[in-house]
Amino acid sequence: MAAVRIFGIDPGSRLTGFGAVECDRHGRLHYLTSGCIRLASARPLAERLRELHANLADLLVELAPQEVSVERVFMARNADSALKLGHARGVAMLAAAQRAVPVVEYSARQIKQAVVGHGGAEKSQVQHMVAALLGLPARPQADAADALAAALCHAHCRALAARLAG
Amino acid sequence: MAAVRIFGIDPGSRLTGFGAVECDRHGRLHYLTSGCIRLASARPLAERLRELHANLADLLVELAPQEVSVERVFMARNADSALKLGHARGVAMLAAAQRAVPVVEYSARQIKQAVVGHGGAEKSQVQHMVAALLGLPARPQADAADALAAALCHAHCRALAARLAG
Repeated sequence: MAAVRIFGIDPGSRLTGFGAVECDRHGRLHYLTSGCIRLASARPLAERLRELHANLADLLVELAPQEVSVERVFMARNADSALKLGHARGVAMLAAAQRAVPVVEYSARQIKQAVVGHGGAEKSQVQHMVAALLGLPARPQADAADALAAALCHAHCRALAARLAG
Repeated sequence: MAAVRIFGIDPGSRLTGFGAVECDRHGRLHYLTSGCIRLASARPLAERLRELHANLADLLVELAPQEVSVERVFMARNADSALKLGHARGVAMLAAAQRAVPVVEYSARQIKQAVVGHGGAEKSQVQHMVAALLGLPARPQADAADALAAALCHAHCRALAARLAG
């Protein structure tokens, strides 16, 4: 199995988390980076989306991941928040597609199942397990942890698929 | 009043309408172009968004509008359709912001009020009035008509603001 670099994105209308992990050829996971893009809500929406896109495009160039993992959204709280989330999510997926990086989507349940062991886990449990799995000295910020969790979920699913195929 | 070119966009998860009008320095409106970008639903979402963005970016380069007008969405039918609409809408607004073209938003009621004369107008009335106002030989396709209506609404509002200012 070749090493693979996975970039997780947790898009949001104000905060977008990101996190990159590398899965080496022995299947070991390595933390590369993570963080959170904050968009000033005072600026026009189109301007914020341009800034989000520019930030993500820069990260994709810098990290050069082979795959991008994004949480699939089933139920947003309401139509208004779903629309706002959709703006950011569309721009995030676009940034990946423009670099010809395939985007995989996992439900929140799948991500929690892969990282914590059960699909109904709390946010704090996700932060705790992400830190433990990647050997981080502290819990990552919540949105960065969600993005890392999406990346880890994809790493697990890839490894499983490789084992089944092999 | 200087001539201004306005590009209207009616974003949708499958069909995105667009339409450009020019408002000359005498306040007369001229039709430039309109159409509809169809995205094959069989392809991955990120790929469709990339295609939508590329199409809109090309149109923005070709038409070089000074302003972009997009319908503001208050109530999508449900959270799922709002998320899908948001993906396309975010990408459309991004394309404008990347060319440093300001994006203005109008509610569906404002657009219908400006084009048909009352905010509760039917889709077919919008198509009819768009064709009449721009002297088109036939009714434009529904999404293209909505995009042209958004552009016309902005042209009316600009003209009104200019008159009030002058």
